[in-house]
Amino acid sequence: MEEFNVAIVGATGLVGEEVVKILERRNFPVASMRLFAMEHSPGTKLFFNHHKIEVEEARPEVFRDIDIAFFSVGEDSSRRLSPLAAEAGAVVIDDSPAFRMDPAVPLVVPEVNVEDIERHKGIIASPGGAAIQLVVALCPLHKVTPIKRVVISTYHAVSDGSTAALKELTAQAKLVLDGRRVCPHVYSHQIAFNVLPEIDVFLDNGYTREERRIEEETRRIMHARDMAVSATCVRVPVYFGHSQAVNVEFAVSMTPEEARKILAQAPGVRILDDPSVSFYPQPWAASGSNHVFVGRIRKDVSHPNGLVMWVVADNLRKGAALNAVQIGEEGMQRGVIKPGKRRR
Amino acid sequence: MEEFNVAIVGATGLVGEEVVKILERRNFPVASMRLFAMEHSPGTKLFFNHHKIEVEEARPEVFRDIDIAFFSVGEDSSRRLSPLAAEAGAVVIDDSPAFRMDPAVPLVVPEVNVEDIERHKGIIASPGGAAIQLVVALCPLHKVTPIKRVVISTYHAVSDGSTAALKELTAQAKLVLDGRRVCPHVYSHQIAFNVLPEIDVFLDNGYTREERRIEEETRRIMHARDMAVSATCVRVPVYFGHSQAVNVEFAVSMTPEEARKILAQAPGVRILDDPSVSFYPQPWAASGSNHVFVGRIRKDVSHPNGLVMWVVADNLRKGAALNAVQIGEEGMQRGVIKPGKRRR
Repeated sequence: MEEFNVAIVGATGLVGEEVVKILERRNFPVASMRLFAMEHSPGTKLFFNHHKIEVEEARPEVFRDIDIAFFSVGEDSSRRLSPLAAEAGAVVIDDSPAFRMDPAVPLVVPEVNVEDIERHKGIIASPGGAAIQLVVALCPLHKVTPIKRVVISTYHAVSDGSTAALKELTAQAKLVLDGRRVCPHVYSHQIAFNVLPEIDVFLDNGYTREERRIEEETRRIMHARDMAVSATCVRVPVYFGHSQAVNVEFAVSMTPEEARKILAQAPGVRILDDPSVSFYPQPWAASGSNHVFVGRIRKDVSHPNGLVMWVVADNLRKGAALNAVQIGEEGMQRGVIKPGKRRR
Repeated sequence: MEEFNVAIVGATGLVGEEVVKILERRNFPVASMRLFAMEHSPGTKLFFNHHKIEVEEARPEVFRDIDIAFFSVGEDSSRRLSPLAAEAGAVVIDDSPAFRMDPAVPLVVPEVNVEDIERHKGIIASPGGAAIQLVVALCPLHKVTPIKRVVISTYHAVSDGSTAALKELTAQAKLVLDGRRVCPHVYSHQIAFNVLPEIDVFLDNGYTREERRIEEETRRIMHARDMAVSATCVRVPVYFGHSQAVNVEFAVSMTPEEARKILAQAPGVRILDDPSVSFYPQPWAASGSNHVFVGRIRKDVSHPNGLVMWVVADNLRKGAALNAVQIGEEGMQRGVIKPGKRRR
């Protein structure tokens, strides 16, 4: 089997660390592994397959011998470095929002639109976690009965931010339990024992950028240009796992039984749906799992063609690192990511 | 001014305690105050206006001299005791779901349908907290432009349960922060750092009873029989304050500016809506306040006649105790609750 020179850019971040683990676990065919961070931190070493690897500074010239570069860095850093890496011959799989709506860059969730990988020109974008789990649950239904509109309210975990967000939740929770005051740093307001309807910046139309991204990315991944999508994204004091209440309107009605049958066969989906024993997806339980969990599937009593469901996934796994690795695997299998081939 | 013999049934519960405080603060015209609990707990005393009052066991015969009885007990207890209290001549203001859908019992949110109080026959029902805050925000809009459909996802605080739920959240949060395992008691699963799409029992159609209640109570309070309502109710690790993401579909379009203008004048509503400075309602900040807070008002990009908003209120105040006291005040002012008058 062919092996690849792999780079992980942003290896010390939450998603980067997860990419390392997933590549190990899935026996990704690695010839060589290099780990990069945006800032130089001399001496930082991480393990990959029992080898200690020094984390290097991600500079433009480092990508010369790389076949696949997994980028999990900020939007600006990716916008600057990804094109250089691609130009140097690497195929970039980028987890940031930088290129997600770029028509020249495929935006891929392998369970949904794997064929889009084939038209890559050096960069493939991985969607945001909220859009990924949504399309994995929606697309199998949409293929059977077209979806006209989706209304979604989210329960976003803090881990789609930095490790600082995880620490802030812990620190604030301890302060509150001690009866002390909280001074927010990462978020605009207290997140412990509170919920905040603000994720990323606000746009002119009153939606946040995260809400707009869900709308646009969902349409793009599903190739459903006319599908109406409205999201309200809310941060909740949960470490790992995004949850979503999803109201779907189909062109014609679909019964919960039909939906359950379709989703039971859908790739990447696991149905947890037995109200009689309080069995439904929960972020705490979904953490560390690769699946998109769907439950509480029911007819929407407010719309003749409506269904309601509850969708949960680990935002660091399927919502980020796993999806990126799957893109790499599919690219390899389809021969559009090749060792040494795109190098100039 | 006329004064009333007041009883609080369930005085040791979360809502009952709040009723005591609110009656004090609003100088409710109390001639005598008696406090009751469902179980006999000899020696338990509570303060009302600096008087120590012994908590008595709520027995059928205790209501003979009572003019107003605020009931904040379980549904079954209320179903058993409220009719007896009414028969003994008291006007019962009941916070439980027992009589909310009984056509003979008015279901009242004073800001919305205060006139319904007048046709009471001894019992007046106060709606569930989630429905109360929803109708306070929706009804002023509905009066201007009829609402056809409402899709709502909730972020329910734990305090609409018992004090045991508050303690469970604290105890579980401490265990998680100590890296220890959690064993759930009050809820089916862990609530600390988790979210649970289950409030009250599941019905045959896949909705929970809390979700059904929001649907039915909202329609009943607003006298909007044809308004379609679908709710997904989710418990979040928040002590006080229910939050709601609400997608509203009007018969004809209403702009966010119009909605803001209407809500700025609406009784009981306070608008907190300036995204540029991350200003929006939050449960932590709403706790202890009497208002229904509305923010994030925006055009729904997925529907031509749609609006989206974010509604937060203290579930123990406006969502329960305050609403009950307001019903009492309005009943007094309208002369349909009178001292000594209904006694036989």
